[in-house]
Amino acid sequence: MTDALNSADILARLAETVASRHPDRGGDPATSYVAKLLKKGPDSFLKKIGEEATELVMAAKDGVPDRIINETADLWFHSVVMLAYYNLSPEDVLAELARREGLSGLEEKARRPAD
Amino acid sequence: MTDALNSADILARLAETVASRHPDRGGDPATSYVAKLLKKGPDSFLKKIGEEATELVMAAKDGVPDRIINETADLWFHSVVMLAYYNLSPEDVLAELARREGLSGLEEKARRPAD
Amino acid sequence: MTDALNSADILARLAETVASRHPDRGGDPATSYVAKLLKKGPDSFLKKIGEEATELVMAAKDGVPDRIINETADLWFHSVVMLAYYNLSPEDVLAELARREGLSGLEEKARRPAD
Amino acid sequence: MTDALNSADILARLAETVASRHPDRGGDPATSYVAKLLKKGPDSFLKKIGEEATELVMAAKDGVPDRIINETADLWFHSVVMLAYYNLSPEDVLAELARREGLSGLEEKARRPAD
Repeated sequence: MTDALNSADILARLAETVASRHPDRGGDPATSYVAKLLKKGPDSFLKKIGEEATELVMAAKDGVPDRIINETADLWFHSVVMLAYYNLSPEDVLAELARREGLSGLEEKARRPAD
Repeated sequence: MTDALNSADILARLAETVASRHPDRGGDPATSYVAKLLKKGPDSFLKKIGEEATELVMAAKDGVPDRIINETADLWFHSVVMLAYYNLSPEDVLAELARREGLSGLEEKARRPAD
Repeated sequence: MTDALNSADILARLAETVASRHPDRGGDPATSYVAKLLKKGPDSFLKKIGEEATELVMAAKDGVPDRIINETADLWFHSVVMLAYYNLSPEDVLAELARREGLSGLEEKARRPAD
Repeated sequence: MTDALNSADILARLAETVASRHPDRGGDPATSYVAKLLKKGPDSFLKKIGEEATELVMAAKDGVPDRIINETADLWFHSVVMLAYYNLSPEDVLAELARREGLSGLEEKARRPAD
């Protein structure tokens, strides 16, 4: 895994790129897909989230790895656009996942019989 | 942002935890939610992806940040479970996002008039 | 096709049953599934619509007729519950479908070369 | 309710129209939207079912009656196309709904204390 594929960088960089395309920050809906979605508002990217989730379900049923990766990327990409619209970031989501992971670790420890 | 919230670590660690719950690797469907999903097979976690995508759409329509973060976390979490089932990882998805980001950068450069 | 399966009757009767379960009209959320959904409000039955749509997609990918029929019935059933919540009925939807069918017929006629 | 809006007629007629557009029965994908969906196969209309379900959820969250009716019509329309592809009909779905309604009636009777 090269530095270029460090996921912290990738998601943070993606969020940064998305944020820079916001029409309020100079993004041009005529040339940028992200700017167009952010300008049109929630229904435009939420519709894509529903659509990409369905396409991911179909790709998974077909069991084709490349399509599964592609559709998951589409789903996560539109999630990041959605987060940007609400001034949220992938880091907020990752922090929540980390928090749960921690809780889950604690729960598992709590369940273990004393040594 | 502390190290604990480094997203490469978080997603990789989550994928590792999920993989360790696979019934073939000792995960117990009786005590682990992830093991139960992986044992039941695709329809169980794909159903959750459709469900969480819908809940995310509703949370976003309501514009409540905490619910948006929670539902996105649910959606990404079940995406990671799905990826694990097909022997794929979040890194495959992030690599695809990085690849597109790179292409997009190149496209933008290509579109620029020569200075 | 017996009278019992007349679709006008079936959908109208279903809508009537659903309406009669409204908590404002005596439906009891403790014993009636429909009353519980209507009492909980939109997110409860909209979540089901997203869920059943996903299950229908999976059943169709598997190509199992019984499951396709069942999941479509689930999807239409929750659509009728949703319509009832907004004081709408299946007849409103069927009227819209008839209107389009009419338009479509007209369009097709318009496209035909003069005899 | 005029005859033109009789739902048995409407759904049966819609199913008939859809069936007549099947490429195997002369439907032309170049001029007919339904023929194009049926020719492309399951993913094309299943994607629409996921999409229209999401749009219905958004319309319902906004509480706009006209959009709710329109999106439900879109969802049911694509359901009928899907059914046609698998040689099923709206009547199969209505029969299942009637069967459940009957069972539900029986259940309710069974639950009632003897008079």
